[in-house]
Amino acid sequence: MPRPVDAVIEAAAAFLGERITVNAALRDHHSHGQDTQPPVLPDAVAFIETSEEAARLLALCHQHNVPVVPFGAGTSLEGHVTPVRGGISLDLSRMNRILEVSAPDMDCRIEAGVTREQLNAHLRDQGLFFPVDPGTAACTIGGMCATRASGTNAVRYGTIRENVTGLTVALPDGRLIRTGGRTRKSATGYDLTHLFIGSEGTLGVITEIQMRLHGIPEAASAAACQFATLKDAVETVIAILQCGIPVARMELLDEVQMGACIAYSKLTGLDPVPSLFFEFHGTPASVAEQAKQAEEIAEGFGARGFQWATDEADRKKLWQARHDAYWAALALKPGHKGIATDAIVPISKLDEAILGCKEDIAASGLSAPIVGHVGDGNFHTVILVPPEPDGLARAWDLDRKIVARALALGGSCSGEHGVGIGKREFLEQEHGAETLAVMRSLKTAIDPRGIMNPGKMFLN
Amino acid sequence: MPRPVDAVIEAAAAFLGERITVNAALRDHHSHGQDTQPPVLPDAVAFIETSEEAARLLALCHQHNVPVVPFGAGTSLEGHVTPVRGGISLDLSRMNRILEVSAPDMDCRIEAGVTREQLNAHLRDQGLFFPVDPGTAACTIGGMCATRASGTNAVRYGTIRENVTGLTVALPDGRLIRTGGRTRKSATGYDLTHLFIGSEGTLGVITEIQMRLHGIPEAASAAACQFATLKDAVETVIAILQCGIPVARMELLDEVQMGACIAYSKLTGLDPVPSLFFEFHGTPASVAEQAKQAEEIAEGFGARGFQWATDEADRKKLWQARHDAYWAALALKPGHKGIATDAIVPISKLDEAILGCKEDIAASGLSAPIVGHVGDGNFHTVILVPPEPDGLARAWDLDRKIVARALALGGSCSGEHGVGIGKREFLEQEHGAETLAVMRSLKTAIDPRGIMNPGKMFLN
Repeated sequence: MPRPVDAVIEAAAAFLGERITVNAALRDHHSHGQDTQPPVLPDAVAFIETSEEAARLLALCHQHNVPVVPFGAGTSLEGHVTPVRGGISLDLSRMNRILEVSAPDMDCRIEAGVTREQLNAHLRDQGLFFPVDPGTAACTIGGMCATRASGTNAVRYGTIRENVTGLTVALPDGRLIRTGGRTRKSATGYDLTHLFIGSEGTLGVITEIQMRLHGIPEAASAAACQFATLKDAVETVIAILQCGIPVARMELLDEVQMGACIAYSKLTGLDPVPSLFFEFHGTPASVAEQAKQAEEIAEGFGARGFQWATDEADRKKLWQARHDAYWAALALKPGHKGIATDAIVPISKLDEAILGCKEDIAASGLSAPIVGHVGDGNFHTVILVPPEPDGLARAWDLDRKIVARALALGGSCSGEHGVGIGKREFLEQEHGAETLAVMRSLKTAIDPRGIMNPGKMFLN
Repeated sequence: MPRPVDAVIEAAAAFLGERITVNAALRDHHSHGQDTQPPVLPDAVAFIETSEEAARLLALCHQHNVPVVPFGAGTSLEGHVTPVRGGISLDLSRMNRILEVSAPDMDCRIEAGVTREQLNAHLRDQGLFFPVDPGTAACTIGGMCATRASGTNAVRYGTIRENVTGLTVALPDGRLIRTGGRTRKSATGYDLTHLFIGSEGTLGVITEIQMRLHGIPEAASAAACQFATLKDAVETVIAILQCGIPVARMELLDEVQMGACIAYSKLTGLDPVPSLFFEFHGTPASVAEQAKQAEEIAEGFGARGFQWATDEADRKKLWQARHDAYWAALALKPGHKGIATDAIVPISKLDEAILGCKEDIAASGLSAPIVGHVGDGNFHTVILVPPEPDGLARAWDLDRKIVARALALGGSCSGEHGVGIGKREFLEQEHGAETLAVMRSLKTAIDPRGIMNPGKMFLN
């Protein structure tokens, strides 16, 4: 008997041609993201090129009860793109047209497969940029919407959530809808845009995005400064936020991560001690003033060794080191894999969360450098997984402890990586059974057959 | 036969006592907002004091199929609080406790009946403020959440949507859930917080709000400047936004509104011509720099007569004049009522929208001064309704023309007042039939019996 998925593949070939494929190498490429979840092969991969194709393919999958897993660049850290129940991996990477950029409105409409690197290259001549920066240049903006991504700039420019004003979404039954619009705000109707942002492909496929852009700042400067203790660094952050200094980036690296970055990125003049990396945007005068204010506050908490980088090459070097933190961490222990953890707490609990995290790391006997978007209360570790039979289990155990502590401090189990597979077990604890039941009822209302990215976000 | 609502009143009296009432004066007070919709009496008014009471009352209404209309301060401009199908007016004004303020986290948790005036008075000593400012001091923050309110500060500080991180919501079937949390961002689960924000009481009753606060700026200055044409004023706004000047407020008044404000608020040194009111926040140096930059840009578009107000009394006078714009407009034509219109367009379409609006006003033969939150593309008119039999019909006809033009320019039929009764007819045109169908399916999933604020947002 032919499988339901075969009926989908055959019918979809009528309009996708060779763009729906069972090629083994392509299925393999679509079997996992950049995580440590076990890979699972999709039955087929479909490279769609238009919103209408996405909708037609979904209608077929709905008709035949076949799972659909949206796939952007495959950079998920939580298993979002793994087709745990097989079905179709719906690849959006060819939907990479920049449909419209309006300089007067400082906004754009793009297809979901556009990457942030591609968009920023396109915008540069117009004096505009897209600020949300998860550290991976390759990720698609559709994927960023689906996982409610953010990154180092969120403290000033907001996350993807604050920058997107509208979407085109293909629904599981084949309807194609537009949510939101182009205006900066609106008070009309339910906020479907924000319902789909962060829905991780479980409600539909985001195919187009309308979003705000920002002017490239006239001036920028960056600095690294170093502290005797992690607590001093965190208290500096709180004081800077309270003073309302509009810092563009404010990143924390613990002494382990700092040591790794010094070695990996050949940073000079910095020691392996708790450090903050800053970036300020504005006019030359306001950048100078912000920098001076931040420096004074930091010095009040014993900071030393301010290294200022105002020219672009120096700034790039500093931030490249920050963006390479994951690779620097991996280089500490050759042969180890890395699990990127993600937790967030209210800012006032950040020292407690991070100091507790360091105790958990010490008790585990594992290495796990810490790096954080501290302006948001968000921090990560890279748990280095020993190449031993129980290595992964020990690493996951440590990850669970870090998350449990963040939740106990009133935090969330993910600031920006999403739930996917890895964080499902925490969702009820974080939100409560009744709130989770409401989420499930929305899922049922929009995807009654449960074809959209099954096995993600919800347990069962 | 007793009516279903009588069963609710009797059962609710068991835990609300005299706080559920059929008193005629109270029912009358709860029969309308600050709009021109025909008043309708609720069958009873319930003054709840806790989230649990709200949930218990909703469970009873659900059981007996009785409509529930949440009521805050009754300042809605679109008929949100009018109980068009009778039932219970659920008054939250006694839920006015400020539950927690955290200075290090710059956030607070409040009950939904807290007003913005009350909250800001409470916060002043801590150097914090709540920025969202719809112009009415009396409005409750719960009502602001329900209608997705904003106001003059949104260009810098965002609307209520960008400032709320979590809610407590009583659902129609009596469940009480918490959405979101305290962290500045989170990537876990569907964004229920933003689904309830702007849902206008049609999905449940917001009873508690967790939200961000901001530091009171060290320095502030305000200015008014005047232009020969509306187009010059609007182009100044676009240029200022593109330069990334972090202006806190930027308001447009047309020559009619400006004339009304000069007369009503006794403003000196200003002429009845198109004008912009600015406010800048920051350090003394950055405020001075922002002001200088804005002035240079405005002068490039022919602005003259900059009036700077840096001390608080002068600033207050200027903004009091702006906040009194509605009363100033009414004073132009004694004996006329006012309809506050609300529309929003992409910024680049603002001059087209406003100049077109002025043509519509001229063609109507009515008076309607224009005032706008131009940094957002949002503008209002106060249509002065002549005390004649066809006055209201002529005014509504003009309102429809203004909205239709905004929609044709890619805008939205409400920037901040909401849909309520008055804007229902535009929702399908703005969002499309299929998107509206998705909204309805969410409504059905959460409120299957349709007891929550029936007759609002959706036609039928």
